[in-house]
Amino acid sequence: MQGDKKELMSRLKRIEGQIRGIQKMIEEDRYCIDVLYQVSASRAALKKIGLLMIRNHTRVCVSNAIKQEHGEEAIAELMQLLDKFMD
Amino acid sequence: MQGDKKELMSRLKRIEGQIRGIQKMIEEDRYCIDVLYQVSASRAALKKIGLLMIRNHTRVCVSNAIKQEHGEEAIAELMQLLDKFMD
Amino acid sequence: MQGDKKELMSRLKRIEGQIRGIQKMIEEDRYCIDVLYQVSASRAALKKIGLLMIRNHTRVCVSNAIKQEHGEEAIAELMQLLDKFMD
Amino acid sequence: MQGDKKELMSRLKRIEGQIRGIQKMIEEDRYCIDVLYQVSASRAALKKIGLLMIRNHTRVCVSNAIKQEHGEEAIAELMQLLDKFMD
Repeated sequence: MQGDKKELMSRLKRIEGQIRGIQKMIEEDRYCIDVLYQVSASRAALKKIGLLMIRNHTRVCVSNAIKQEHGEEAIAELMQLLDKFMD
Repeated sequence: MQGDKKELMSRLKRIEGQIRGIQKMIEEDRYCIDVLYQVSASRAALKKIGLLMIRNHTRVCVSNAIKQEHGEEAIAELMQLLDKFMD
Repeated sequence: MQGDKKELMSRLKRIEGQIRGIQKMIEEDRYCIDVLYQVSASRAALKKIGLLMIRNHTRVCVSNAIKQEHGEEAIAELMQLLDKFMD
Repeated sequence: MQGDKKELMSRLKRIEGQIRGIQKMIEEDRYCIDVLYQVSASRAALKKIGLLMIRNHTRVCVSNAIKQEHGEEAIAELMQLLDKFMD
């Protein structure tokens, strides 16, 4: 899990930088469409992070719950999250 | 436009804070599902910012282009962005 | 507009066929993941149709509204739709 | 599983009807924004079907794979689908 943690942290650092970059673009009155492509890229990067975390969660937490015969709640919880995340 | 700029900046500052919050949650090994809801909230906030910028862009740049009889390119450019943004 | 109408109709006919195909796959107890890729393809096809209609609407209705100095309402209406469509 | 199958089939029948309704709206030259809300509703209905199928698949196929110690492939396959489905 430490490797995953490190990867997630470096991805989040990068997104933090992107968000600051977007602020700078707006301050400099850059062309809206260019700024919007950056907003779109940050959203895509957050989606990628979400998918990585969903994968890790399924591999570890959901798998363990299933092996210990209480997978039903873990799966319901995951599905509720997916519904939200897909908006 | 200055009012919109101020609103966008304050929304982006808030998202920057959320992204830092997510990093903290990961460092503290918080429950994945809780972190994922935060990632989902940041994506929703970026979507909201995108929609605000698309609205402003349509109101100002696209409208002006249409009035000056070269709306076709402005609309094509906006549609390409929308296609990307909806992913 | 008649060309666009014809294209939209043929795209919708194709999606109708896809939806019937999905029903057949479920009746035949096909592997869930294969069915899900078909559901995903139909959603993508509907998104494409939506984008085509948004483009046409912006080119014709929104453009006319802007030229007749009541673009504000047309843009507000379009933005509300976009918000819904992006879910 | 028969209950789920029945529910999926009736949901798909309803979407098939919606798609035909959209065709009728286009033939009758109904207002684009009204048609677009229908397209949006059909996409939302397909998303709901997808989520139901993902839940069933996780409960049955993925759970069984995990119990039989080959969950890794089942989870990788599901993640690939999710990535596609979220577009």
